Amino acid sequence: MNPRRAPFHLVGTGPGDPDLLTLAARRLLERVDAVWAVAAAGTRPRALDVVRPHLRPDLPVRVFELGMRAGEGEKADFYAALAEEAERVSGLGEEVALLCLGDPLFYGTAARVLRFLDPDIPVRIHPGVNAVALACARLAVPLALGEEVVVVTPATLPDARLRALLEVADVLVVLKVGGHLRRLKALLAEYGRLESAWLAAELSGEGEAIWRLDADAPLTAPYMSLVIARRDAA
Amino acid sequence: MNPRRAPFHLVGTGPGDPDLLTLAARRLLERVDAVWAVAAAGTRPRALDVVRPHLRPDLPVRVFELGMRAGEGEKADFYAALAEEAERVSGLGEEVALLCLGDPLFYGTAARVLRFLDPDIPVRIHPGVNAVALACARLAVPLALGEEVVVVTPATLPDARLRALLEVADVLVVLKVGGHLRRLKALLAEYGRLESAWLAAELSGEGEAIWRLDADAPLTAPYMSLVIARRDAA
Repeated sequence: MNPRRAPFHLVGTGPGDPDLLTLAARRLLERVDAVWAVAAAGTRPRALDVVRPHLRPDLPVRVFELGMRAGEGEKADFYAALAEEAERVSGLGEEVALLCLGDPLFYGTAARVLRFLDPDIPVRIHPGVNAVALACARLAVPLALGEEVVVVTPATLPDARLRALLEVADVLVVLKVGGHLRRLKALLAEYGRLESAWLAAELSGEGEAIWRLDADAPLTAPYMSLVIARRDAA
Repeated sequence: MNPRRAPFHLVGTGPGDPDLLTLAARRLLERVDAVWAVAAAGTRPRALDVVRPHLRPDLPVRVFELGMRAGEGEKADFYAALAEEAERVSGLGEEVALLCLGDPLFYGTAARVLRFLDPDIPVRIHPGVNAVALACARLAVPLALGEEVVVVTPATLPDARLRALLEVADVLVVLKVGGHLRRLKALLAEYGRLESAWLAAELSGEGEAIWRLDADAPLTAPYMSLVIARRDAA
């Protein structure tokens, strides 16, 4: 006997504020059989904190822990195992929502799970507000206007690649700044862009802060922070 | 006598589905004194259709019409006048929400109004889900994974600039494709990227459709459509 395959949901919870959840995501969370979340070992998944006010008290919650220093091979194994478990519960008819901070397909966990999922599993993806949109809202600075080109990159790329991006970007967004702040500031200064650049850290979190890069920015930034550098201040 | 200045809200309504509104935006719409929207002359503002199910029947709605073929100077005058009107009603103590499809600061109307607003007016920006996130959700294709670089551009840029973007982008997103589809396909083919590119048209609208660019895509696309071209199919 084969029970029906239940949908497996990849749910964007927005960038951290429970009020930035979409109506679709909240409605879904009211009816699923369980929620899942991924967290670095020993930490709480932030996406779970975001939706907590919207969950039934008795809803089963399952956290998948990934080692802090997992290499690419380990990560692939981890997401493959998660996908396999999703297939198993789908086969049992259990409808599960995997939570993802921000938008699930914009540097999210969900995008990694997706490539391991059996195409026969009905997958439903629920978009969310991303952290870049929240940063721009807090700064009251346009991300993009008219014919502007926006480039989004993680901070880890080498200088040569970041320079190539600065050549073409009207607006450069650098994610996961962390220890790369000093290097980024030097590169932005080289292109005359420090005056129209901002650093936004831990938005919606307790450590939320925003600085102008040419003035009051600190020397180091938390991992969960981003830089927005415009060609003009708009 | 100077009444208090009321906040002026720039509200992202999400990409077209009323369920993709955020909880924050819906709650705000329940208490504002009026909603405003911008539309091309003779058309209905889509952002207004999106929020209609959430509005009190007696809530004043005001539509600002912009000529279809307005040049840059006319547009600037239009948004300057809108900003001035926002300042006037704010001074009267009226709390207004200007609706924007998608996210207000991501190629939205709001970003244009912002630069004309008196900095003394309390402006509140409410981020929304953007159309790119919805397109990826519909396609079940990651926008970005790991260290990938995402580049977003309007289709109107000349070939030379689009080639420069293709050189650096792991994922290229082209907005407002319209009449540029044939030219884009030729450029993507030149870079061997047709096989991992998609066209998404009028998402959440009546004409919603999705095609693979190397297979079943039409020869022309509606204005409100976008192309997502990955370096690999992910």
